[in-house]
Amino acid sequence: MSENEKKHREIDALGEFGLIETLTKGAVLKNPSSILGVGDDAAEIELSANESILVSSDMLVEGVHFNLSYVPLKSLGFKAVSVNVSDIFAMNGKPEQITVSLGISSKFPVEALEELYKGIHAACAFYNVDLVGGDTVSSYSGLILSVNVIGRVSKKKITYRAGAKENDLVLVTGDIGSSYLGLQILEREKGVFLENPNIQPKLEGYDELIKKQIQPIARQDIIDLFQELDVVPSSMIDISDGLASEALHLAKSSDCSISLYSDKLPITEKLIVTAEELNLDPYMCAMNGGEDYELLFTIGQKDYAKIKNHPSFSVIGFVTDKSQDSLLIDKNNSAVKISAQGWKHF
Amino acid sequence: MSENEKKHREIDALGEFGLIETLTKGAVLKNPSSILGVGDDAAEIELSANESILVSSDMLVEGVHFNLSYVPLKSLGFKAVSVNVSDIFAMNGKPEQITVSLGISSKFPVEALEELYKGIHAACAFYNVDLVGGDTVSSYSGLILSVNVIGRVSKKKITYRAGAKENDLVLVTGDIGSSYLGLQILEREKGVFLENPNIQPKLEGYDELIKKQIQPIARQDIIDLFQELDVVPSSMIDISDGLASEALHLAKSSDCSISLYSDKLPITEKLIVTAEELNLDPYMCAMNGGEDYELLFTIGQKDYAKIKNHPSFSVIGFVTDKSQDSLLIDKNNSAVKISAQGWKHF
Repeated sequence: MSENEKKHREIDALGEFGLIETLTKGAVLKNPSSILGVGDDAAEIELSANESILVSSDMLVEGVHFNLSYVPLKSLGFKAVSVNVSDIFAMNGKPEQITVSLGISSKFPVEALEELYKGIHAACAFYNVDLVGGDTVSSYSGLILSVNVIGRVSKKKITYRAGAKENDLVLVTGDIGSSYLGLQILEREKGVFLENPNIQPKLEGYDELIKKQIQPIARQDIIDLFQELDVVPSSMIDISDGLASEALHLAKSSDCSISLYSDKLPITEKLIVTAEELNLDPYMCAMNGGEDYELLFTIGQKDYAKIKNHPSFSVIGFVTDKSQDSLLIDKNNSAVKISAQGWKHF
Repeated sequence: MSENEKKHREIDALGEFGLIETLTKGAVLKNPSSILGVGDDAAEIELSANESILVSSDMLVEGVHFNLSYVPLKSLGFKAVSVNVSDIFAMNGKPEQITVSLGISSKFPVEALEELYKGIHAACAFYNVDLVGGDTVSSYSGLILSVNVIGRVSKKKITYRAGAKENDLVLVTGDIGSSYLGLQILEREKGVFLENPNIQPKLEGYDELIKKQIQPIARQDIIDLFQELDVVPSSMIDISDGLASEALHLAKSSDCSISLYSDKLPITEKLIVTAEELNLDPYMCAMNGGEDYELLFTIGQKDYAKIKNHPSFSVIGFVTDKSQDSLLIDKNNSAVKISAQGWKHF
């Protein structure tokens, strides 16, 4: 192994979160308006005695986060916005503005960029956010989308990753794992197409999975629902890297552990059937799939009555003392330690 | 010419600003907190009755905006922050937070990223801004830096590109053109090195030009000086794309024209000598060079006494009615129409 190869390994060994920790450890918050920096879904900035500004940024790179051979540009524009506003919802806030910076290679005709922006404008209308700025630069190497979102939240309602307490219930919105299986189907059909361009891709019947991958909808509705039900979660995170990884983030930030029940995980019939077809374990897809953009949150037991049996939520586990491991418990009551095997882009 | 080539031409024909106009024309501001969107140095968001939030984003792409063969990573980190906070200064505001999103290829060892972040942290300390978030993703194709800055400004002091009135004076801070010549020197020496790696680059004597290119300092001091001198410019913009291009932006936004005097342009002795050495016209370098990150602004004549003879400012022209062209007037009183030949990254 050469010296260079050794060095390359280091980023792999650190992983994305280790890398972020290494690079941002020098970041000290000095401005009185900086309330919360790196380490949650969004940063928090002082607005007034009652309200905070939330800020979050995400970058999407062609070939890493999306593949233009099967993602329509309009869907990509919509998704880039969804991924970002999801971080504001994860703080129980409302997004209000976005900026979009774009790196584009000259192979892009203006018409293609207009398609991309149709998706961005459609998402702005859907989430009621305004596109207020950005940058447009040339890139030698495919499309790069960097979106920054600004939102607001009442200080009474702001929900951090930290805040889960022992015996709190762990809940998740919607269903999980579909987005990952949607991606597997798209990859499979792309492989078939590359081998024989005369074979039409078989995508019929997988619509719900593919839609969740190509154009996920961030859970704006849940923030309204919390308001309606008069619930403020004790902690919350959005599921971008997979349930296992996000549950561990929540536990670490809250200085506790989390136990989840595999038979309580909200997975669809379609997910089970498709996972079998692809020789994948459906629970593995649900735990480690990623890109669901559902919300994972905890509530105190006193709030259980408010949320019980609501079709948008599934109670999937509970918060334990940090002396215990975070566990996935199956229906036979046998437990395995949860480990993060989420998206690794390095 | 093929159909594809025709389409590629369209982006070139539109140019960066035409492209931005085309893509963002669908952007309507609907949130009451969105005061100003695309079209100035930063977007403006409601904070309170007396203050606004300012937001701006810039993307830097390897091979387009910087060349790692001669830009030290620490300087690049510092510059990425400077370029962004400069947009907040251009609104007469103070930056307070930044987020940094990073696309990196696996060829980067962690040590190199730490160098980059040393520069980012140093700039944060210098400009008194806090690094509060961002994203770190993999890129197959070199380094991508997307910085987003958030600042504050009193509504009494906020300065837009629009606002210049006929007979206002046009001023610029510092000196202009140096950054462009610094880049020419670096490119020349890189060419020499590529032809014969045994020849050491000749960079001595060009330090001030190279420093202005590699690590420009955004004019935070000027915002303090305006406060001290009790001056609020009638319009302002920072010089990233070259004086000619920025003067035309200011004129267009303010619905007026601008006349500049070539013999009033603040160019250094070193610039004149080096331009001659490279067979370049020093006035051309000053007008079209770009990346100076100085401030171009206008003031009402009533404020002239406050600013007169201050070493940080040069009065370089005046605002005229829009029925006239924007002109560059030489010492013999002959005038040429100003045209933008700034950086074209497409």
